[in-house]
Amino acid sequence: MVYSFLNDYSEGCHPSILKIMAETNVRQEMGYGEDSLCVGAADLVRRATGLDNADVHFLSGATQANKIIIASALRPFEAVVAAKTGHIAVHEAGAIEATGHKICTVETADGKLTPGLVDAVVRFHSDEHMVKPRMVYISNTTEIGSVYTKTELESLSVYCRDNGLYLFMDGARLAQALTSPASDISLKELAGLVDVFYLGGTKNGALLGEAVVINNGELKTGFRHNLKQNGALLAKGRILGAQFMGLLADDLYFENGRHANRMALKLADGIANMGFCFLSAPVSNQIFPILPNSLIDKLSLDFGFYVWSTSSNDTSSIRLVTSWATTEQAVVTFLLKLKSLI
Amino acid sequence: MVYSFLNDYSEGCHPSILKIMAETNVRQEMGYGEDSLCVGAADLVRRATGLDNADVHFLSGATQANKIIIASALRPFEAVVAAKTGHIAVHEAGAIEATGHKICTVETADGKLTPGLVDAVVRFHSDEHMVKPRMVYISNTTEIGSVYTKTELESLSVYCRDNGLYLFMDGARLAQALTSPASDISLKELAGLVDVFYLGGTKNGALLGEAVVINNGELKTGFRHNLKQNGALLAKGRILGAQFMGLLADDLYFENGRHANRMALKLADGIANMGFCFLSAPVSNQIFPILPNSLIDKLSLDFGFYVWSTSSNDTSSIRLVTSWATTEQAVVTFLLKLKSLI
Amino acid sequence: MVYSFLNDYSEGCHPSILKIMAETNVRQEMGYGEDSLCVGAADLVRRATGLDNADVHFLSGATQANKIIIASALRPFEAVVAAKTGHIAVHEAGAIEATGHKICTVETADGKLTPGLVDAVVRFHSDEHMVKPRMVYISNTTEIGSVYTKTELESLSVYCRDNGLYLFMDGARLAQALTSPASDISLKELAGLVDVFYLGGTKNGALLGEAVVINNGELKTGFRHNLKQNGALLAKGRILGAQFMGLLADDLYFENGRHANRMALKLADGIANMGFCFLSAPVSNQIFPILPNSLIDKLSLDFGFYVWSTSSNDTSSIRLVTSWATTEQAVVTFLLKLKSLI
Amino acid sequence: MVYSFLNDYSEGCHPSILKIMAETNVRQEMGYGEDSLCVGAADLVRRATGLDNADVHFLSGATQANKIIIASALRPFEAVVAAKTGHIAVHEAGAIEATGHKICTVETADGKLTPGLVDAVVRFHSDEHMVKPRMVYISNTTEIGSVYTKTELESLSVYCRDNGLYLFMDGARLAQALTSPASDISLKELAGLVDVFYLGGTKNGALLGEAVVINNGELKTGFRHNLKQNGALLAKGRILGAQFMGLLADDLYFENGRHANRMALKLADGIANMGFCFLSAPVSNQIFPILPNSLIDKLSLDFGFYVWSTSSNDTSSIRLVTSWATTEQAVVTFLLKLKSLI
Repeated sequence: MVYSFLNDYSEGCHPSILKIMAETNVRQEMGYGEDSLCVGAADLVRRATGLDNADVHFLSGATQANKIIIASALRPFEAVVAAKTGHIAVHEAGAIEATGHKICTVETADGKLTPGLVDAVVRFHSDEHMVKPRMVYISNTTEIGSVYTKTELESLSVYCRDNGLYLFMDGARLAQALTSPASDISLKELAGLVDVFYLGGTKNGALLGEAVVINNGELKTGFRHNLKQNGALLAKGRILGAQFMGLLADDLYFENGRHANRMALKLADGIANMGFCFLSAPVSNQIFPILPNSLIDKLSLDFGFYVWSTSSNDTSSIRLVTSWATTEQAVVTFLLKLKSLI
Repeated sequence: MVYSFLNDYSEGCHPSILKIMAETNVRQEMGYGEDSLCVGAADLVRRATGLDNADVHFLSGATQANKIIIASALRPFEAVVAAKTGHIAVHEAGAIEATGHKICTVETADGKLTPGLVDAVVRFHSDEHMVKPRMVYISNTTEIGSVYTKTELESLSVYCRDNGLYLFMDGARLAQALTSPASDISLKELAGLVDVFYLGGTKNGALLGEAVVINNGELKTGFRHNLKQNGALLAKGRILGAQFMGLLADDLYFENGRHANRMALKLADGIANMGFCFLSAPVSNQIFPILPNSLIDKLSLDFGFYVWSTSSNDTSSIRLVTSWATTEQAVVTFLLKLKSLI
Repeated sequence: MVYSFLNDYSEGCHPSILKIMAETNVRQEMGYGEDSLCVGAADLVRRATGLDNADVHFLSGATQANKIIIASALRPFEAVVAAKTGHIAVHEAGAIEATGHKICTVETADGKLTPGLVDAVVRFHSDEHMVKPRMVYISNTTEIGSVYTKTELESLSVYCRDNGLYLFMDGARLAQALTSPASDISLKELAGLVDVFYLGGTKNGALLGEAVVINNGELKTGFRHNLKQNGALLAKGRILGAQFMGLLADDLYFENGRHANRMALKLADGIANMGFCFLSAPVSNQIFPILPNSLIDKLSLDFGFYVWSTSSNDTSSIRLVTSWATTEQAVVTFLLKLKSLI
Repeated sequence: MVYSFLNDYSEGCHPSILKIMAETNVRQEMGYGEDSLCVGAADLVRRATGLDNADVHFLSGATQANKIIIASALRPFEAVVAAKTGHIAVHEAGAIEATGHKICTVETADGKLTPGLVDAVVRFHSDEHMVKPRMVYISNTTEIGSVYTKTELESLSVYCRDNGLYLFMDGARLAQALTSPASDISLKELAGLVDVFYLGGTKNGALLGEAVVINNGELKTGFRHNLKQNGALLAKGRILGAQFMGLLADDLYFENGRHANRMALKLADGIANMGFCFLSAPVSNQIFPILPNSLIDKLSLDFGFYVWSTSSNDTSSIRLVTSWATTEQAVVTFLLKLKSLI
């Protein structure tokens, strides 16, 4: 295998994080997220988001974060609305349903929800024989690489507020979203539009960790109880603090996202120049070129990636994912190989 | 604060683990525990336990492990039997009940279950108006520092097998148990007596991680599904593999436990020599001296520890916990301070 | 209101059931379904289905039955496959998800599942990041009034057996299904093709009650524990036994279904003769004529029914439901009124 | 068997209830508890309790009521406090835990909770590693036949209000409690002291049914959603309405309780006069005489009852339960038989 474009968590972490871990290793710290690293990192998160009163919690992964945020917010009969392609609806082994809650899924063109799509769900669920939609789950970037614009987020935010729905953003790839050429919104602007969201670490250069930011006061109480009950309070929470101390010092969080996007778009440009199309417009670190199946077979001898979907009898889309760690050389090598195979 | 004896997870990790993490950091690996570090560490676990066919999974913490192991094994109406002092019964914020299962608790003298104690529970639950006990949960060392002997484990094992109960051992402090002067059993002997257990890493020098060992084939199927559903599959599972590659190379796993016990027993000897008694016999890395309250107040200015229980009007027991990282100097300093205060 | 066609549970129960209840009222009986009425009724169920070894349990309603049957059969990460129109997927307020299980829904043309539709779901769920389909839920009649043929059931049964899936039939309207002109299968033939199903009582002339029949031995153990845990064991289970003693004596169970169908098809014939179309072919006691909205408004002054779906700018389908208690006169009155309004 | 004193649900229902069912049988009614019988019965409940603004729901049994009331009120990490002998803690097959909630049990002398007993539980659960007690469950009469006084209820009510706990009374035998010679409180007085409770029907002459009364506005929202989700909304809810139309017309509800108590106390007097003692003072329709085992064996040939607990080497307590349907003759026969056996 020359290089794997399977995902954005194939490598370890950014060296600056390892450095913090080594430097603070022998220090005695409080357990369960009350250590000085978590406390410091939470402050950095509040500063970066402009939410001075937000509660910040560090969790070890995205499924865990999604599960706990949703279950903590909802009463037993309440449901969450998501795109049919939403991570919680497909790739979390029923984690949300395991907490007792239905996901009301919606077909979308591009992985993004709109007020209209959500409203149809809300109006359909009209009586006590059905669940009651109470939260809207969106991911940014979405599972198919698309990115929400400021206008789109504002309209969703207004709709949710007007209709008594919580708006929750899965930010596993938030850095990539905010540094995408398709984005026109800042972290601070975005933070004010949602009730709860997280800054993804795992897919942006951390060993593990998502920084959950609770903006809406109603969602704050009892959150640490829920973390503990779900096995999500690490005894040595310090390692989660260390990740975000590293990512949020200087501009590393955004720089990692920017780099991943740059590598993906360089790949996309090269592939487009060879005359291939894409399943969706490449705007972030996941791109979906459509290639002849025979070509895919040959590429897969040297490169790792998922075959995503069938496009025609003899073509399929593949998913190529870049990360903070993807080198220019890996991109160039891929493009050269592809060129040589056409 | 001179030194904290609050717990055994106040420091980071053993340096040899950090070294492995740094050395393997840039390597591309598979996600979700299918990386070469986890694969290698699982082999080391199988070798150390002598269970060639065991399934081994690396989880990030003890509450998570307890919750998933129990919920994965039981049908909805089945229950787990535990000591009233059992970690799952008290300090996991209802994690087991959150999966739908009742814990049938039993009063014990020393934190340890016996066939007789379990049998009373089993016989009480006689019809379908009650839950059905199906698993026995023991911790070794127990929550109050006691240690199971070979005979005790054998008799529990036989009882469970004869009565259709799974025997599950919480091994968050298994290294400390097996290296305790009160223990007369080897890891391999112990491994054959239980259906499922784990080798604790977090409290024995790892940054995080418990190595779950599934011995009974009935408990193997679907376990990774359950991990994913509970948010317990880390995308970069490699960091869990790295912990156990470090701990199980050479004798580090046991050496860490031995050291922790040595430091605790040195503390206990010193305290006993000053004429103080203990809540329970000190045999592992948690000891419970009974001291005058006024003395406790003064000690707490320099040292971290929990006040455990009231012993008389003016005395209480405190819990002192040592770890792989506790230095002789910390122990000596504590004893000198105590002496100076009497 | 002249007559309500809202549903098939608007009236009380068939007089012969009330008679049994009155006659046995003062008799002392065992509680929780171990009374002589339940024992006798279970025997009648076994005889009627030809399943001599089946376990039979009487539950008070269909949502309760669906919930308990599904949750009792599945492990935490396992899912149930259902039509998107399936009752469990829409009108049970998230009852299935509340037990922790995902429903994998499938678009169908006519409310019926086929091996091909199920197979697509099974093959999509390929790894531990997704739930594992383990049970197939079908309803007969379906929620839109259609009926499974013998061939359709046989092919589903074979598919499920070959692929390790349980086949579960919601028989809330099973009497109507089996006595439909569209049906070509007997109760005994059908009973052998499914792992578990129920004979609906509530919608077929009982005050309450569904008779759950467990054919597959794997699903039998612990079922009464699950009933109790879900609050489904009535202390005076005798009243459930009485319902089925009444329904299964003579031919009443089928006669009630036959009558309901007869009334519905008489309605359908009359409506068709006036030139109106139907959303789906009328074959059982739920029919869905498409009428002008202005006509619907006028009809609703005298008759109860649900407006089902929009068909065009100025027409909608309505749902008319008949039951064991619907009189010929009610049908005639409706048709006359409709005629007068055209 | 001459007569069964096993429980208070061995017979059917009071004839006046059957009469209402028969009289209203052919009437078309709305489904799911929105029928005229439920509406009328809810009004009678509000009048009887003096709670003009209470929400009233009719459920089919006590386990179902307990489960739904508790789960509807609590967030995932919150717990309910109960006596160790509480029905929810022992005889509901883990129904409460199945909804995800821990029951914190308390040893009591007489089955009754006090502010002091509850307060010890509340203070023990001090941080997020433990569940958070949020509701107090009491039963009246208790599971061992004792009855709360006005003073006891007032002090619990004040304690709960002051400490942010909901007070919930299981009233499966509330009629027997309020008509006990040990009671000094009226239904209206009691109703104002609790947040939610129910008037038991099943054990007081109804075929089935408990009338849940929600006094605290915080507990009202979404309750019907929870009923539906738990399979507790009967399609023909009218039969539940009919039970309480019958019980609450005139004085039947209390008269049934009074009669049951009268029969029990007559039994108790007779037994005491023969020189036997009781496990607890007989004050309601469950009494616990202590008899020689040899005598118990002989009695059990003619009478049904449970052997409750071992009192000495050769004596045990038995539980005798009377009901609205117990005849004087049954009592006399038992006493004569007992006398003849001494």
